[in-house]
Amino acid sequence: MKQRIALGLCYDGTNWQGWQTQPSGRTIQDQLEKALAQFLAEPVQTLCAGRTDAGVHALNQVVHLDTGAQRSAESWIRGLNTLLPSSISVQWAQPVDTSFHARFSAQRRRYIYLLRNARVRSPLLQGKVGWVFQPLSLDAMRKAAALLLGEHDFSAFRAAECQAASPVRELTQLTIHQDHELFVFEFEANAFLHHMIRNLMGALVYVGMGRQAPEWVTELLQHKDRRLAAPTFAADGLYLTGVDYPAEYGLPTTSSMQLCQRFLGIQWGKS
Amino acid sequence: MKQRIALGLCYDGTNWQGWQTQPSGRTIQDQLEKALAQFLAEPVQTLCAGRTDAGVHALNQVVHLDTGAQRSAESWIRGLNTLLPSSISVQWAQPVDTSFHARFSAQRRRYIYLLRNARVRSPLLQGKVGWVFQPLSLDAMRKAAALLLGEHDFSAFRAAECQAASPVRELTQLTIHQDHELFVFEFEANAFLHHMIRNLMGALVYVGMGRQAPEWVTELLQHKDRRLAAPTFAADGLYLTGVDYPAEYGLPTTSSMQLCQRFLGIQWGKS
Repeated sequence: MKQRIALGLCYDGTNWQGWQTQPSGRTIQDQLEKALAQFLAEPVQTLCAGRTDAGVHALNQVVHLDTGAQRSAESWIRGLNTLLPSSISVQWAQPVDTSFHARFSAQRRRYIYLLRNARVRSPLLQGKVGWVFQPLSLDAMRKAAALLLGEHDFSAFRAAECQAASPVRELTQLTIHQDHELFVFEFEANAFLHHMIRNLMGALVYVGMGRQAPEWVTELLQHKDRRLAAPTFAADGLYLTGVDYPAEYGLPTTSSMQLCQRFLGIQWGKS
Repeated sequence: MKQRIALGLCYDGTNWQGWQTQPSGRTIQDQLEKALAQFLAEPVQTLCAGRTDAGVHALNQVVHLDTGAQRSAESWIRGLNTLLPSSISVQWAQPVDTSFHARFSAQRRRYIYLLRNARVRSPLLQGKVGWVFQPLSLDAMRKAAALLLGEHDFSAFRAAECQAASPVRELTQLTIHQDHELFVFEFEANAFLHHMIRNLMGALVYVGMGRQAPEWVTELLQHKDRRLAAPTFAADGLYLTGVDYPAEYGLPTTSSMQLCQRFLGIQWGKS
């Protein structure tokens, strides 16, 4: 009899063509399914909570799969990590009820965007943070963020290729912290449209640089026209940090800050 | 007339064969001299404060060179960074007296070692931190660190290929901070022998894991025999963070913590 297993993944998306399987095989899903096939000695299909784009990272991507093979939680972690490339790792593994679905059971998704605001790039954070060298106003960006909160038609921040049935999403959190050169943007919503966070980041940066007033984002929401908004911002600083499921499934929940501390050594909100 | 220029470099050493020029050209020095030759339209030779090994990073490597060309401080930074690979960057540039020598004028060198102590690797910190999965005792490592401080014959921690005339060095600082999974080791000495920090790290980790008592490091110092000590630890977590020169040269001085905050987003000593 088959059992459903949920996995928590952490990965550096820099050198991968995003989550979703492609003929090239250079995706997170392809690498995971290859490792799973070897580990379980059977072909396995996986489904994830958030299909990250090329260059986007994850600190806690949630995936599910069905298998007849029996393995201990420890064996799932050690066995798969031996077979996976070092830029992808399994952090936890847990059997779940068959009613669980990584994508459809998800109630909320959390992402962070790390943005470095400094005159010169940091070679050590290459691919891990977005970069803006013009000084940014935290205050102006926070004003714009407040205007984006809540349920809106986010058509102005949606990629042309977006396949979602509706452009309406509820943005339940958009907080911005600054710690010296580093800005941390925390996003939470029931779900996100394709490129939605990178497009919101583009607009927030325009506001932060003073190219637009904070109220401009309200105009963008109202006009629902992607062409009026700012360009899509770099994928580099974007991390999927968590997915919330009904408590009955008993999956691990860790805050974005704790995960960021654990996997990047970066904290905020302490100073 | 030629002028002497000092440069401050930050680099990710992961994909380079160390500082020192090699026929392959895959070194920091080769890349810098190639960019300089293009920028100044003349061949240029550089000298650095600390010849970092393959995989070792720098947050503030100091380099000097002589040139007849005139450039503004801003132009040195922008011009060279346009020509350098993104894993190497010039952070500051300053004219200095011809008596200045990046290596021989240096009074003290500072390095940090970042060590991750966690059951599973972090894909996001790959190449940027050393990794130990067995639990480490901060207390035991601090005791050993205290015994290593001061002037000693460090032959037990010196690579066979080391070319230094004397194995005696004065270790003026070795402090260890722990912040959740991350251990930060701060080293300061008048100078370091070849592989000295990586060999000290190997011994400290043995003590931290409980394979040896803290007093073992005193025995190692006394026996002066590299073969009795622990293996050389990984280069991954090692960063040259600063070089102290006589104040008269007026070069920028920034603490290791500030540089780590700036270039890695990592801080310590706050919690």
